[in-house]
Amino acid sequence: MAAVPMIELWRGGLLESCHSGHAVVCDAEGQVIEAWGDPEAVIFPRSSCKMIQALPLVESGAADRFGLDAARLALACASHNGAAIHTGPVARWLADLGLSEADLRCGPQMPDDPEARRDLICSGAAPCQLHNNCSGKHAGFLTLNRHLGGDAEYVAPEHPVQRRVREAFEEVTGLASPGYGIDGCSAPNFATTVTGLARAMAFFAAADPDGPVRERAAARLVRAMLRHPELVAGEGRACTGLMRAMQGRVAVKTGAEAVFVAILPERRLGVALKILDGATRASEAAITALLLRLGVLEREAPIVDRLLTGPILSRRGLVAGEMRLAPGFAA
Amino acid sequence: MAAVPMIELWRGGLLESCHSGHAVVCDAEGQVIEAWGDPEAVIFPRSSCKMIQALPLVESGAADRFGLDAARLALACASHNGAAIHTGPVARWLADLGLSEADLRCGPQMPDDPEARRDLICSGAAPCQLHNNCSGKHAGFLTLNRHLGGDAEYVAPEHPVQRRVREAFEEVTGLASPGYGIDGCSAPNFATTVTGLARAMAFFAAADPDGPVRERAAARLVRAMLRHPELVAGEGRACTGLMRAMQGRVAVKTGAEAVFVAILPERRLGVALKILDGATRASEAAITALLLRLGVLEREAPIVDRLLTGPILSRRGLVAGEMRLAPGFAA
Repeated sequence: MAAVPMIELWRGGLLESCHSGHAVVCDAEGQVIEAWGDPEAVIFPRSSCKMIQALPLVESGAADRFGLDAARLALACASHNGAAIHTGPVARWLADLGLSEADLRCGPQMPDDPEARRDLICSGAAPCQLHNNCSGKHAGFLTLNRHLGGDAEYVAPEHPVQRRVREAFEEVTGLASPGYGIDGCSAPNFATTVTGLARAMAFFAAADPDGPVRERAAARLVRAMLRHPELVAGEGRACTGLMRAMQGRVAVKTGAEAVFVAILPERRLGVALKILDGATRASEAAITALLLRLGVLEREAPIVDRLLTGPILSRRGLVAGEMRLAPGFAA
Repeated sequence: MAAVPMIELWRGGLLESCHSGHAVVCDAEGQVIEAWGDPEAVIFPRSSCKMIQALPLVESGAADRFGLDAARLALACASHNGAAIHTGPVARWLADLGLSEADLRCGPQMPDDPEARRDLICSGAAPCQLHNNCSGKHAGFLTLNRHLGGDAEYVAPEHPVQRRVREAFEEVTGLASPGYGIDGCSAPNFATTVTGLARAMAFFAAADPDGPVRERAAARLVRAMLRHPELVAGEGRACTGLMRAMQGRVAVKTGAEAVFVAILPERRLGVALKILDGATRASEAAITALLLRLGVLEREAPIVDRLLTGPILSRRGLVAGEMRLAPGFAA
């Protein structure tokens, strides 16, 4: 099955551009409730699966042994903006482990946060690994690694940290991963199907906070994300804005190349989508449409218009066009 | 006919993302030589048609009356980076007309040029309309407007300047435009088919420098673009790099939402392509592939690998993946 049109861009009454993709809604039993495009399409979840990558950190006991609070767990699941509210806490977390920025293996990244970016540019300083949007995930890897006693190269695919991640990933997706790619942060990113990723999100949605160890870990990570939407992404970002608009009822997470997931505890549903061409504007619009369809996001929330329709403005502020849902998608 | 896959992104041996589009190669008689996807798809050329929008400026006699040299004509065809080499000459051009930045109607834009951007950010200054990538095109509109004696609102669709643009556009594309949209710079952007745009580029390619007035104007604009590739875009940009690599033999121009055109005077051919999803990475790779296929770009030129294959690196510099041509496209 091919990807189906999801998000269109219109200008002057004519269709200018179009984004196609795959999307799946899964229930707690792992059954597909609704799908668009090919639910069996193999995708890289990229950063959308950070809460899965954080499962071994919690279920191993490492998070408790090193006293990680909800803020640190939220950072472990984050693709953050590199603002001071992100880099400061990650630096302190590393210091508490007796480690430093040099122990990270995520590489440096210019932060998206305007203030942090301006400070770096105007001081002539280079960004460091703390600014990398994945630095919290890597602090989590380092915490698990301290617990497991592995060597320093914790992003190697055969490293005990990544072996634990792969085991958890395959169990919650319900599928053997067909392979992995090197992510932007140099960690392995395991492939799965859109359904596999949605099934994993449904597992998080239905996880019993008093259940078996993995369910307790999953529920705790979701609570951390919901409690700290500003740490999961940052000001102005879709993840933070959508979670705030849904007032702690739904956790959402973006991934590079236009993946987006949602965890709906009240409905015990998981959602995963991938825009085939990798455009973030389309994955943000598509997840917004699905959250509206599922009745967990109010149409009147200010972020909805921004993510779903634009509008597209000229540089003098004239309305030049808008995004629309493609016929047949999530209407 | 649907758009066809053109550019793929691979990671870890798996297909991660894919871009589809339409492309046409036209000869000087306006015949389609080769096509992928739907040659009759209606598109907005966006900035790829700036040399068409500059035709009335030259053929009306305005360019000669106001003494525009090749550099100013290149700027009239440019989507520039807002570097000092662009903003300074546009400011002087306006001053020569007795006009100023306030007479532009393109709106302000943060420049892409790293130095100009850093200067603005670190001084706390706002970008002005000279920084808008279209400021040269608008200086051209203002020059034509001075010649025609129109009112100040030269971007209004019924303004004499834009009526002249539309007439020229419809004549060189060989088609009545089905409509217009407001471009990012607030000027009308007239829609046409991919074939119409390729046909227009073939007209520019075959234009006789000693022929009728429109052909002389077209040939002069192509010479200006070829002589000043650094003014048409800027350092690090695909248009500038590709034109330099082809050593003045081929003019190329990008447009927003992933349009790209090429003018091949030696071959008397025109090329136009549109990536359906609007991704610039894909339009840059696709035009590179077509220029290689047409034998006007050397495979060994350093810019070819960068635009065509990536590679895709992690933030520590590990090779994580690469772009590939989709089977059946331009191989």
